[in-house]
Amino acid sequence: MSLQAIRYRRGSLQILNQLLLPQQSLYEEISSVRQGWEAIRAMKVRGAPAIAIVGCLSLAVELHNKGSSEQSVSDLEHWVLDSLSYLVSARPTAVNMARAAQELGHFVRQEAKCKEATAKRLQESVISWAEAMLEKDLKDNRSIGDHGAQHLLQQVGPGKVTVLTHCNTGSLATSGYGTALGVIRSLHAMGCLEHVYCTETRPYNQGARLTAYELVYEQIPATLIADSMASVTMKEKKVSAVFVGADRVVANGDTANKVGTYQLAIAAKYHGIPFYVAAPSTSCDLSLKHGRQIVIEERPSQELTDVNGVRVAAPGIGVWNPAFDVCPHDLITGGIVTEFGVFAPAELQAALTQASNKKGTH
Amino acid sequence: MSLQAIRYRRGSLQILNQLLLPQQSLYEEISSVRQGWEAIRAMKVRGAPAIAIVGCLSLAVELHNKGSSEQSVSDLEHWVLDSLSYLVSARPTAVNMARAAQELGHFVRQEAKCKEATAKRLQESVISWAEAMLEKDLKDNRSIGDHGAQHLLQQVGPGKVTVLTHCNTGSLATSGYGTALGVIRSLHAMGCLEHVYCTETRPYNQGARLTAYELVYEQIPATLIADSMASVTMKEKKVSAVFVGADRVVANGDTANKVGTYQLAIAAKYHGIPFYVAAPSTSCDLSLKHGRQIVIEERPSQELTDVNGVRVAAPGIGVWNPAFDVCPHDLITGGIVTEFGVFAPAELQAALTQASNKKGTH
Repeated sequence: MSLQAIRYRRGSLQILNQLLLPQQSLYEEISSVRQGWEAIRAMKVRGAPAIAIVGCLSLAVELHNKGSSEQSVSDLEHWVLDSLSYLVSARPTAVNMARAAQELGHFVRQEAKCKEATAKRLQESVISWAEAMLEKDLKDNRSIGDHGAQHLLQQVGPGKVTVLTHCNTGSLATSGYGTALGVIRSLHAMGCLEHVYCTETRPYNQGARLTAYELVYEQIPATLIADSMASVTMKEKKVSAVFVGADRVVANGDTANKVGTYQLAIAAKYHGIPFYVAAPSTSCDLSLKHGRQIVIEERPSQELTDVNGVRVAAPGIGVWNPAFDVCPHDLITGGIVTEFGVFAPAELQAALTQASNKKGTH
Repeated sequence: MSLQAIRYRRGSLQILNQLLLPQQSLYEEISSVRQGWEAIRAMKVRGAPAIAIVGCLSLAVELHNKGSSEQSVSDLEHWVLDSLSYLVSARPTAVNMARAAQELGHFVRQEAKCKEATAKRLQESVISWAEAMLEKDLKDNRSIGDHGAQHLLQQVGPGKVTVLTHCNTGSLATSGYGTALGVIRSLHAMGCLEHVYCTETRPYNQGARLTAYELVYEQIPATLIADSMASVTMKEKKVSAVFVGADRVVANGDTANKVGTYQLAIAAKYHGIPFYVAAPSTSCDLSLKHGRQIVIEERPSQELTDVNGVRVAAPGIGVWNPAFDVCPHDLITGGIVTEFGVFAPAELQAALTQASNKKGTH
């Protein structure tokens, strides 16, 4: 069974506290919006999709457990809207929570306006909305995993494959299963995975701490390498493909992702190894034409100079710590893996527009 | 004044204890062969040239201070030979100490055979031999620095240059000044250096700990980056050239150096940035034809999974930790910088053969 960082059943939510990983695997109960806010704020849960899902589910759990008998429809509507604003404030830059708050806010206002609306019915529909969000993200991730795995297997022909990946894109960053790590899970489930190499992903070590944790948990044959070893690994270890996630994919296929992605793509191109980006369509932002429009976020220097609070680097040295870099579309030689299928960067915009039109006509 | 990790004057030797860097800059007195052996064994001094120099100078210091009046020529000869064998045993894989022991051993046997040999004269000539070794390495490094700097400046035309470097190749790895970092020192001294980017150099962090320390010490404008950021740095920060050192350069120009060098060379090629290897001719091994003959040394996994004794990586994950990688000669687009000048990889063998023939005829 795939690692579950979010455990949910109606009326109960538990999350794996990522601050304690990889040393300790501790699930914590989230039974209110307040506790959801605190878990997001403290980064016990991270990754944009996971933040939004935990936020909305914390609301669903509190709603379920508080009952509805003594409330008016209007009171309930306002409680939901206030809770959503509060949840967005936990990490204002996490776009997915803001988008979910907007969508669920719109939904609750519509529902409250219905003639047949009762507090009980409104409560039920909000809970179902949050549950559907969890299910949709899980389903999309499984689709991404399967599409990516099948595409690679078609490219390389018979025999097992070896994959290299970067950062954490698994159950610890999504509702579960993962994007790039979802592809690896699918390959493993199909019995087609020879080996995984995961980079430690400096400076925040998401690969060493989180991806390695997930791979060990699922008993997927895997080896940790330093980021600087990716090229010699490609050369010496028969790597079949590189799969990474994405913070944002823009219209021409240029992709922003964890720093180091660009370097991996260059190395993959040099070795003639297909390079794939795996991301749900919600991470694709067709309003931006190309990657030069993406602003590179810079993070505090301590992430690079200190490890576990202990200074490693020489005092006084300047630091540049960009959180991500932009990989130009021509280096994405494998394709962009979405829940709708795998597309060449040049096909992405048309494919996503078509998929969203199709959804609209249902 | 350039950072001096080895402070020597006749009868006195001090070394900067590298185990305490970058937090503490402590010089320790080495007044005997025994103390030299201990400093090498404990890795207070590291880097193949530095190990050999400290070993031979510890012998010179003890020899100077013990006097010679009460010894026979034969006693002195045997004391030197025994001391050299002992010094080699401190770190048996350090090739330079073994080579120095062989050369100085040959020298002392020849000198002892001379008709005019006296204990005093023999003592004097051994001390001078060790001092000449220090001076030669320093002089060679300065030549490497100046040749590399001039070559780059000729390539890029007027204006200041920005250089990216990897690992530690400075005063802390050589007799002083350094190889790749020597080129950076020369560029800085000429007033032609805009900026240096140094990689942290995982897993042992020689860049963050040692190179950053040297750059801060000399007030050279510099920025530390993670290894994974080298490509985005090349793209965004107007890098003029990459300079790295070498563990070994073989006949066709293929070069073994600290892991990550190969990846930097690929990235430099992709960005059209000249890539230079800086190494004394003593690091060139013309007996090997190509890089595939070089065995890649693998190091303990703890270097990658632990930092300052604290586990960072998930327990149970497998690790691959090659200490270096091999950069094929066609990626060395700038040239190989030696004390004799800068050569294209294809010219190296002929140039070194010619230089050594010239030396032989003197």
